[in-house]
Amino acid sequence: MKIVVLKFGGTSVGTTKKIKKVSEIISSYIRKKYKVIVVSSAMSGVTNDLVNKSKEISENFSSNEYDVLVSSGEQVSCALIAGRLKHKGIKSRSWLAWQIPIMTEGQNKNARIIKINKRKILHYLESGGIPIITGFQGIDFDQRITTIGRGGSDASAIMLAKFFNAEKCIIYTDVEGIYTTDPNKLRKAKKIKVISYEEMLEMASLGAKVMQPVSIQDARLNRIDIEVRSSYVNRSGTLITKKKNIKNNKIITGITSTQNDAKVSLIGVKDKPGVAASIFKPLSKNLINVDMVVQNISANGKETDLTFTIKNEDLNRTKKIIKSNIAINFRKMIFDKNVSKISIIGVGMVTTPGVTYRMFQTLADKKINIQVISTSEIKISVLINKKDIKKALSALHKEFNLDK
Amino acid sequence: MKIVVLKFGGTSVGTTKKIKKVSEIISSYIRKKYKVIVVSSAMSGVTNDLVNKSKEISENFSSNEYDVLVSSGEQVSCALIAGRLKHKGIKSRSWLAWQIPIMTEGQNKNARIIKINKRKILHYLESGGIPIITGFQGIDFDQRITTIGRGGSDASAIMLAKFFNAEKCIIYTDVEGIYTTDPNKLRKAKKIKVISYEEMLEMASLGAKVMQPVSIQDARLNRIDIEVRSSYVNRSGTLITKKKNIKNNKIITGITSTQNDAKVSLIGVKDKPGVAASIFKPLSKNLINVDMVVQNISANGKETDLTFTIKNEDLNRTKKIIKSNIAINFRKMIFDKNVSKISIIGVGMVTTPGVTYRMFQTLADKKINIQVISTSEIKISVLINKKDIKKALSALHKEFNLDK
Repeated sequence: MKIVVLKFGGTSVGTTKKIKKVSEIISSYIRKKYKVIVVSSAMSGVTNDLVNKSKEISENFSSNEYDVLVSSGEQVSCALIAGRLKHKGIKSRSWLAWQIPIMTEGQNKNARIIKINKRKILHYLESGGIPIITGFQGIDFDQRITTIGRGGSDASAIMLAKFFNAEKCIIYTDVEGIYTTDPNKLRKAKKIKVISYEEMLEMASLGAKVMQPVSIQDARLNRIDIEVRSSYVNRSGTLITKKKNIKNNKIITGITSTQNDAKVSLIGVKDKPGVAASIFKPLSKNLINVDMVVQNISANGKETDLTFTIKNEDLNRTKKIIKSNIAINFRKMIFDKNVSKISIIGVGMVTTPGVTYRMFQTLADKKINIQVISTSEIKISVLINKKDIKKALSALHKEFNLDK
Repeated sequence: MKIVVLKFGGTSVGTTKKIKKVSEIISSYIRKKYKVIVVSSAMSGVTNDLVNKSKEISENFSSNEYDVLVSSGEQVSCALIAGRLKHKGIKSRSWLAWQIPIMTEGQNKNARIIKINKRKILHYLESGGIPIITGFQGIDFDQRITTIGRGGSDASAIMLAKFFNAEKCIIYTDVEGIYTTDPNKLRKAKKIKVISYEEMLEMASLGAKVMQPVSIQDARLNRIDIEVRSSYVNRSGTLITKKKNIKNNKIITGITSTQNDAKVSLIGVKDKPGVAASIFKPLSKNLINVDMVVQNISANGKETDLTFTIKNEDLNRTKKIIKSNIAINFRKMIFDKNVSKISIIGVGMVTTPGVTYRMFQTLADKKINIQVISTSEIKISVLINKKDIKKALSALHKEFNLDK
């Protein structure tokens, strides 16, 4: 069987008019002789509305009931899609996660799919039916509804593609694909035709919001080709696939920038073994994620300065933890919210020397000061002043031939 | 176990504020040492919104998917109620019909509950938990979601009361109980303290909208005491029970009137055997319900006049059917939408002679013309001109001592 998994996001099914459009898209795959498995999110706005209701009921709403509550949204969208297909004379029905079942484990609100019972869906596909499956949810071993945390319906789609050995998993959303950089920040941004899982993971982690890193990682581990494309315009999107499928002659695939970082500097920290650990341990225990770190070379061998970045929203808690922790010795704490992390990403840089130099030189030419640097095999990130974002994006986009 | 079933209607759980109130009501029964089973409808407005969406998708929306769609509403309200009880430190959880399961048979949109698996809920009650069960729904033998047609969540509550042998089933709604007549039409209307199933059946069939006849019939067959009361004010409502539990010294318990009847008269119908059947058979086949019927005594032995009432909404279809049916011979068809059926109901009339006379005399005194009459053991209905409703209600309410 030539199976394709089609996943529709909340904006793609946001109105009954859009659901009619979605049913046209599904029909087009039936005409191409695919066996189609559909996964849908809740209609946009519905989940937020339900979450708000739960907050009105309790600031500490039961996570079991939270999952029962919000999972109702996909039940609605799936029934409407199946109803529309039947209206068009196509054999289709909604499949709620518990009817299959899709088994999960882990905590409520943050469960993981561990098994999908294939029997009923395979039988249904063989009979010529189009199953419309609720994304974002499953059941646990007590038969209670669970929801999948990060990744949501994308994760459902990728796991379905895995279990049913699908040729491809297509994520329909409200953008045309993945761009070389955020088109809202740089008009010259171009749609990327094909990108490796590894690059996409970096892009997503560094601020490209189209997919959650955890879903890309699932796809990577299971070698599932993903296409991200728009449900509004019929144009090919971005293919996310294995490196060896890519004949890319660009060194850099994309550039990202962040909006919500904060920089913390501790001046006059004792320069002795274990001092960095004594600072980062209490932050880690409080689930505060430290991103970039730089420690100056000690001038006198006794004291040094330590600089790191965190999310803006964690700044107040970070200050409190550091001040209240007597094990941490320092003379002065400085923080700066006017920073942005700019990253260039590309598997090409592994085999191309001089990329770091070209990046730094490009920024220097534009008189942009680099505050912190961090690198991985396929990305280089620098922290700069927020006011310089546009200038930096534009210059780097040009330097690495992304303008085309 | 002393079990009580509490059912909350859509207006009672219409907002998160009202759900908080509902959780107070539930708590009060826990304090009285009851084992409580809660059944909830969807938040008011939600089901209508979903039904409208289904109509936008298709004028002929699949009834299977309709049930999947609308049953999501109770999932939301039950999760919110359970979440609120847990917030208050009470052991509670939502139970979706499929998790119990509540088994139904019959068509989608109009299924009947045939079996409720007691094991899990009994176990949960014994452990001190408060189950919050989705009303209005069940599953069929294919594990697909069904909804219960007429009666909805009331029917669910009554069947739960039956299977769990509950002491009482309490229907919380937006009115304080059943009234001697519609308080919107007559200010002197009084709340009825206790009423028999049989009277309540007539009241409901004849226009008292608080409960569907089918639910009352279920309660009657299973001898389940029902109390209808308000979720807004803490006052005792109306008890619906067996006749022998009632020490009623009133002859008449209540008076109803209808708003949407139409009268059809066929003049010059051949007076021969089978003529009435030839008229009513095609109406019945088209699911048009004929209510009151009167046939005049034939003056010449050849022709007669036939008058009957139907629902207003069926009038156009009725005209068409009668005109197109060549088997029906008549000279002239007359119809009148300005009619209302007024009924007096009471088990007391079985043993009290002269009730009919008193009703007719009361109307005659007010110069109200009676067009058609129909009677049963415990009710007398008359068709009058719509403009006379208020006058008639008021006079009859006084005549039969319902003003108190």
